[in-house]
Amino acid sequence: MNGTVVITGGCGFLGAALARLIATRGVTLPDGRHIEPRIALWDRPDAIAPDLDGTTFAAVDISDPQAVSAAMPDDVVLVYHLAAVVSGQAEADYDLAMRVNLGGTNAILAATRAAGDNIPLIGTSSLAVYGGRPSEPLTEATQIQPQNTYGVTKAMAELVMADYRRRGWVDARTLRLPTVTVRPGKPNAAASSFASSIIREPLKGEEAICPVDPGLAMWVASPDAAVAALWHASSVASEDWPAFGAVNVPGLRVTVSEMIAALRHHAGDTAADLIRMEPDERIAAIVGTWPTLFDTSLAQRLGFAGDADLDAILTQALAMK
Amino acid sequence: MNGTVVITGGCGFLGAALARLIATRGVTLPDGRHIEPRIALWDRPDAIAPDLDGTTFAAVDISDPQAVSAAMPDDVVLVYHLAAVVSGQAEADYDLAMRVNLGGTNAILAATRAAGDNIPLIGTSSLAVYGGRPSEPLTEATQIQPQNTYGVTKAMAELVMADYRRRGWVDARTLRLPTVTVRPGKPNAAASSFASSIIREPLKGEEAICPVDPGLAMWVASPDAAVAALWHASSVASEDWPAFGAVNVPGLRVTVSEMIAALRHHAGDTAADLIRMEPDERIAAIVGTWPTLFDTSLAQRLGFAGDADLDAILTQALAMK
Repeated sequence: MNGTVVITGGCGFLGAALARLIATRGVTLPDGRHIEPRIALWDRPDAIAPDLDGTTFAAVDISDPQAVSAAMPDDVVLVYHLAAVVSGQAEADYDLAMRVNLGGTNAILAATRAAGDNIPLIGTSSLAVYGGRPSEPLTEATQIQPQNTYGVTKAMAELVMADYRRRGWVDARTLRLPTVTVRPGKPNAAASSFASSIIREPLKGEEAICPVDPGLAMWVASPDAAVAALWHASSVASEDWPAFGAVNVPGLRVTVSEMIAALRHHAGDTAADLIRMEPDERIAAIVGTWPTLFDTSLAQRLGFAGDADLDAILTQALAMK
Repeated sequence: MNGTVVITGGCGFLGAALARLIATRGVTLPDGRHIEPRIALWDRPDAIAPDLDGTTFAAVDISDPQAVSAAMPDDVVLVYHLAAVVSGQAEADYDLAMRVNLGGTNAILAATRAAGDNIPLIGTSSLAVYGGRPSEPLTEATQIQPQNTYGVTKAMAELVMADYRRRGWVDARTLRLPTVTVRPGKPNAAASSFASSIIREPLKGEEAICPVDPGLAMWVASPDAAVAALWHASSVASEDWPAFGAVNVPGLRVTVSEMIAALRHHAGDTAADLIRMEPDERIAAIVGTWPTLFDTSLAQRLGFAGDADLDAILTQALAMK
């Protein structure tokens, strides 16, 4: 026990996997305390909550400050803010992206601040904040010039998080996650959704569409690596976390053709031949502005680890099937 | 005629000086048309509008989207968005800073978008978006990690401006202005207000307080240079303006003691001795995180010019007295 951990987007695949990890292994707070907390999963009314002891589910509209404030538990000790409108949807609906990705972050930060003194809050951001590849490998010192609305809202949320951190209101920490692949479940409106589909669907014997040039490189991490990063982030001492608050999580640079080759190697031609090339300019325009190679030495110094190689990611995908 | 130019913060000293310049010389639009427009000055109800032919004054609460939308003229051809909560006030009132500096920019952008296709809009930002001096001289490629709420709101406004630009909704252009000195009028709540006071007040025979160490360096521009930059910004062709939209305006790196020495040189010991050193940690903490040296070659390629030297700034201040 020792308090409640809130996870927004808690029924998404990252949120549910994180809840499972915390329910099994507990979680370490910045002050070094290891606790076995209650877990409050917040998500949309239609979300399917994982069947997991020690968790509760609440439908919370994060873009509504009153609803967020009313839902915030008195004994909250740690917040994971994962809920967001994804890239393809953000590009299609600017107002929704601002309301949820920026307004939602504002509401969560304000309610966390009201709940106690400098409570740790882990927010997920994205390599989409960069846009372009000014000088790869990128670091935390590379300029932020997002070239899609998703990246813009995430960059704005990072700025608000950083100001709450500087003011000592919330111990806010932002993780810029690589594209997570192979993401379980169904395709979603993320422009990067194909990076999971082209592995996941063929492994199930289903056709998948690849909307980008096979030469396109991406910066990726496995679901296990992404969840491990979220879990680890709360354990770093406050004084060790960088002042601005945003850290680039380790990933791997892979091309789409390398991913297809790895699928062919692990699952054979029958699977790999289920991928149909069908160029989509809208998707290529978004994903094509994302950087592909990072220097993550800051994250490594803070104890974050990434995947060993693409084979390790494929092995996870095969186990998931 | 040929349309209306809207200036928010139009009764402030930059807005009024810009209106005077446009009323005298007209203004050039990105498509090369030189026009002599109507000028609509928007400001708070208590603002004192300059007495100037061809201008109208309207009290508009820029944080109210409906009010902004209702006030936007049908024939608007160019918008200058200068209104903002300044640095010291932003640090003291986080909510107000977000509402005016970010919410106000949102409202102006939305109303400008609704008024026509890709209308040019010049927004003022600040070197406060940087925070710290990661590697001077700074360029547009230096990372944005503001260390005060003013800089945070300005950086967020830049991101929104850039997204409107990318989407082709508004031809948004952001100028990151140096600290403007010697600013006429009264001291205000900007943390950098002393940079004007220590020259302006002694020139009037009045005492001035210097709240920072004389060794502190600042990046400054004269009022004339700042207004000239605003006036020039509308004339750059759309295809020449950088994609992200933010340009660092030329300035000068001067220390506070150089400014005091220049005052002593131009106005004598009697004036310079009116400056009283009275350290203020709150002000030093804000101004001390601002960078002091920029490489402004991008701005120069686009035709922006700065002040020749500190003497030129002092000469302006003397003329203003």
